[in-house]
Amino acid sequence: MDKFNKIKEDNLAKIKYDKSSKGSIDEPILTLVNQINSLPDFFTTSSCSGRISVIKDGKGITKQRNAWIFKKHQAITVEELKSIVLPKERCSLKFETVILHIATNSIDNAFKMLKIARDSGWKKSGIISYKKNKIMLECSSTEVLAMPFSKEGRIIANDEILEEFCNQANEKLEKAHMKIKKFTKNLQLLTD
Amino acid sequence: MDKFNKIKEDNLAKIKYDKSSKGSIDEPILTLVNQINSLPDFFTTSSCSGRISVIKDGKGITKQRNAWIFKKHQAITVEELKSIVLPKERCSLKFETVILHIATNSIDNAFKMLKIARDSGWKKSGIISYKKNKIMLECSSTEVLAMPFSKEGRIIANDEILEEFCNQANEKLEKAHMKIKKFTKNLQLLTD
Repeated sequence: MDKFNKIKEDNLAKIKYDKSSKGSIDEPILTLVNQINSLPDFFTTSSCSGRISVIKDGKGITKQRNAWIFKKHQAITVEELKSIVLPKERCSLKFETVILHIATNSIDNAFKMLKIARDSGWKKSGIISYKKNKIMLECSSTEVLAMPFSKEGRIIANDEILEEFCNQANEKLEKAHMKIKKFTKNLQLLTD
Repeated sequence: MDKFNKIKEDNLAKIKYDKSSKGSIDEPILTLVNQINSLPDFFTTSSCSGRISVIKDGKGITKQRNAWIFKKHQAITVEELKSIVLPKERCSLKFETVILHIATNSIDNAFKMLKIARDSGWKKSGIISYKKNKIMLECSSTEVLAMPFSKEGRIIANDEILEEFCNQANEKLEKAHMKIKKFTKNLQLLTD
């Protein structure tokens, strides 16, 4: 077994014992993840199909395990947002779009996968690191929402803006799912 | 003159007659842009040092020239936001961080520049396209704000959230400027 395949095997074993807070791959991106992992020259190291979240603000907070107060990978309502039990710390409300980290074994393969991602509307995609046996791609898109939400345990955003946030976040989530489907289809065309 | 240098010369000539709405390179990123353009193997094709903007929402709107209602590359106040003359269309309020597009002539050079960008805290940086004579890098960072702002010419966000938006946007702008300085310094160290 060559070095790349050893890294791939170790990585796929880790996915089975996923240490993330969610503990599994999101359903909307599962087919694409499996499809990539079935290719001899590629494997995925992390994925998210798009999510709405409430997160504590502050320096270095994203590295803290307990920074997230709320995460949802499906459509959201204002009522749900209002029922979240909030901490004293300042919190932000976010929509983050689909993101996928893919490892490969050559520059040629990296550019091949990058082209498929970008042609599928994943316009925030690039090759982000290079090691002899592992080249990493980060594939993502442009949909984003990020706004102040609460302080001292109290929501500071008014209802009208929360309503608008939910409408836009739900639209963007649908857009992210469509882009996952397009990537899956374009990858299928290539490998058929 | 080789092909890469011909493309570089043509591109730098274009910058002098910049067709963007702003018509010039932002002052906080000018030193970095000039430094990159002075290197034989690199040139910049576009840049923004970070900005606060109000933009019309809707399908394909970012491609429209008149989509932007307001743009500012310096700190902002709630009073300024409230004095913007708004259109009937729904608008969003945004903070977008520093972004820089860099062209180079080889994969090795692309990875060299990418490493400097990422080591300078520009964590959203990658190689985004490959042509024989021009490899493109997009270098950016993670700071972002994007929220609903107005509809039918009326601001829908309450004052408390606008206040918080301004505080956070101004902080993020400072952070973006610090990252520009760090990139400039790290690039200097390499080329000295």
